[in-house]
Amino acid sequence: MKIQEILDGAASAKLGLSGASTSVKNKALENLAKALEENSGSVIAANKLDLENGVRNDISKALLDRLALDEKRVQGLADAVREIIGLPDPVGDVVNGMTLANGLMLTQVRVPFGVVGCIYEARPNVSIDIAALAIKSGNVAILRGGSAALQTNKELVRLIQQSLEKAGLDPNSVQSVDDFGRDGAVEMMQARGFIDVLIPRGSAELIKTVVLESKVPVIETGDGIVHIFVDESAELEKAIPIILNSKVQRPSVCNALETLLVHKEVAAELLPKLGEELTKNGVKVHGCDKTLEFISDAVPATDEDWATEYLALELAIRVVDDLDAALLHIGQYSTHHTESILTTNIPNAERFLAEVDSAAVMVNASTRFTDGGEFGFGAEVGISTQKLHARGPMGLRELTSTKWLIRGSGQVRG
Amino acid sequence: MKIQEILDGAASAKLGLSGASTSVKNKALENLAKALEENSGSVIAANKLDLENGVRNDISKALLDRLALDEKRVQGLADAVREIIGLPDPVGDVVNGMTLANGLMLTQVRVPFGVVGCIYEARPNVSIDIAALAIKSGNVAILRGGSAALQTNKELVRLIQQSLEKAGLDPNSVQSVDDFGRDGAVEMMQARGFIDVLIPRGSAELIKTVVLESKVPVIETGDGIVHIFVDESAELEKAIPIILNSKVQRPSVCNALETLLVHKEVAAELLPKLGEELTKNGVKVHGCDKTLEFISDAVPATDEDWATEYLALELAIRVVDDLDAALLHIGQYSTHHTESILTTNIPNAERFLAEVDSAAVMVNASTRFTDGGEFGFGAEVGISTQKLHARGPMGLRELTSTKWLIRGSGQVRG
Repeated sequence: MKIQEILDGAASAKLGLSGASTSVKNKALENLAKALEENSGSVIAANKLDLENGVRNDISKALLDRLALDEKRVQGLADAVREIIGLPDPVGDVVNGMTLANGLMLTQVRVPFGVVGCIYEARPNVSIDIAALAIKSGNVAILRGGSAALQTNKELVRLIQQSLEKAGLDPNSVQSVDDFGRDGAVEMMQARGFIDVLIPRGSAELIKTVVLESKVPVIETGDGIVHIFVDESAELEKAIPIILNSKVQRPSVCNALETLLVHKEVAAELLPKLGEELTKNGVKVHGCDKTLEFISDAVPATDEDWATEYLALELAIRVVDDLDAALLHIGQYSTHHTESILTTNIPNAERFLAEVDSAAVMVNASTRFTDGGEFGFGAEVGISTQKLHARGPMGLRELTSTKWLIRGSGQVRG
Repeated sequence: MKIQEILDGAASAKLGLSGASTSVKNKALENLAKALEENSGSVIAANKLDLENGVRNDISKALLDRLALDEKRVQGLADAVREIIGLPDPVGDVVNGMTLANGLMLTQVRVPFGVVGCIYEARPNVSIDIAALAIKSGNVAILRGGSAALQTNKELVRLIQQSLEKAGLDPNSVQSVDDFGRDGAVEMMQARGFIDVLIPRGSAELIKTVVLESKVPVIETGDGIVHIFVDESAELEKAIPIILNSKVQRPSVCNALETLLVHKEVAAELLPKLGEELTKNGVKVHGCDKTLEFISDAVPATDEDWATEYLALELAIRVVDDLDAALLHIGQYSTHHTESILTTNIPNAERFLAEVDSAAVMVNASTRFTDGGEFGFGAEVGISTQKLHARGPMGLRELTSTKWLIRGSGQVRG
């Protein structure tokens, strides 16, 4: 089998899926949720092969953990599919419409993209999330899940295709190119005209490669050097829980805090207490000179720290002169994902909201809220850090394009 | 001066322009409209140098015509700017909002992209259109207008920068890289992180180059192999005017008809009459075998004709068996710009609307209507033929992204 056959299969499946009713698409998803529950044994068995292979190849503990499936996690996959069944179908939504003076009726409606590609790494849950979101939004999906999860993804795609077929949909509506190894990803990036949008999910390096090499339009996701600025007027008893929640609740994800900026007037009061709490939670602090005065077990921060997404229990802290200095630092180092200001000064809050150029800008809230689930979008495709098409958490709607339908009765242009 | 200085200048101008009020932006545009009227002499003098240079370099008549400015055309530029003053400012529009159960208030608002780049060829009106649309939508613009219009664009950019400055805006809000020759375009395509979106306008070849080589997100525009299908049930007395309007009203533009598909049951009645009208209008017909039976001065069409955007008084005509065959042909050759069906059969009309995968799909109307001006968007940035971000005519709204503003009172994630 050649990759072109997969692309051709996707092209053939497109028309049927894009025109499928919500109930047929939901039927396929219900089949999938059931299939996952009924076949958890075979999924876990396939996963065991990948885990054994991973141990042999000496992959990291963190990667092995993300890869591993047990009964509970497989049930979690089924639950995620059922959640998507409950979400409204965006296809066919009328987003704009007008009748021109000459009688032409214009309607702008939401339509599926067509074929969505996803390149990701060793996370079997992404296979199910993307497949389910794609099916619900009427998009054919082509998956490249990486060699570490090869056997698991093969079994998951088998269940997905079976579920599609049982609902009367083309099983080629969801396919994988994993059999082609690295070539699969390369071919996907070249498949202009066959794949309408490519979504990379995973490490910053993976995302960068896809963004720079793809000939297919890409939505850039993830990559969060996330900042909190504690302003002079912040309520410190609220600040510490927000900072801790942003940093330690789930340090490995893109909306976790990476750099804390502290107004110099509150450094002496905040930092000693905060330092204790961070130490208690196992967080290593990289501090500027001023920070080191207040947090004794902090290590000196270098310029590299300001540009680092730790994705771990590490935090860079810098004491700054004022809001201007904080905005300057954020302007220089932010990856435009999420930043939050802790303040009771409303002009400062509004200035921060207006001037910080990120997907989500917050006042007095944990950065962990930038999340499709929290926003009520259900499972998410990813969090877009680019400005084109989608910005911030992407749900079903962000997997659609639009189309102008123009109904006339013989109009010509004068 | 280095190109990096232009990019840095754009970065500095961004904050001021993105936060500028509608009235300040409109003031800059009013200054520009007046400046064009008051300086038409210097603009036309600069243009004369380009035209002389063009004649020396033996550029085509069509190109010289697009390049040429006279009093009337300069007035047209000023009028286009005034039209943009009258359009609503999309910046700050609230597109979505909700309060979560925990009290967090979420607002999704429209914001400018930041820096918009445009690469185009020998059309001074694009310099003014893009600059005015960018200013109105709060976007800094970097222009690359091509060497053929070098002197004209230099004078236009001088007037634009003067107009910005007089309104209290940073003159670097609109800059040109034309001084750097071809390198200017190459550097723009590499300027990821400095330019947020790149819009190529011009020949299919130019657009293809930008789409394939740019590291900056691109919106693909133009390129229209536009089809009309005359169904069995079409009203032939309406069909001929629609076909003629679509083909001959302005053959050089992307929404002009390129291939006509005719249901075999109406070929004998339609084609002889249509052939006469086409000949009368100077249209050369490339026909399939069946077409040649009815239009004596047609030449045989080859497969290449179905894949050609003539942009001239030439038309490919193919007789097809039925709607299915028409859809198949369109699926194979369409560039996803505009297609129209002429029919009185409502199920066929709806099927055509649903199944044709193009930016604009029409029933009983001239394809020439796919146009920002006709849609009421004012001057247009271009017509997007891709599915990401914008599809079809792009106006001010399509020059914006969104941003989530999240206002809390100490919320942390549970």
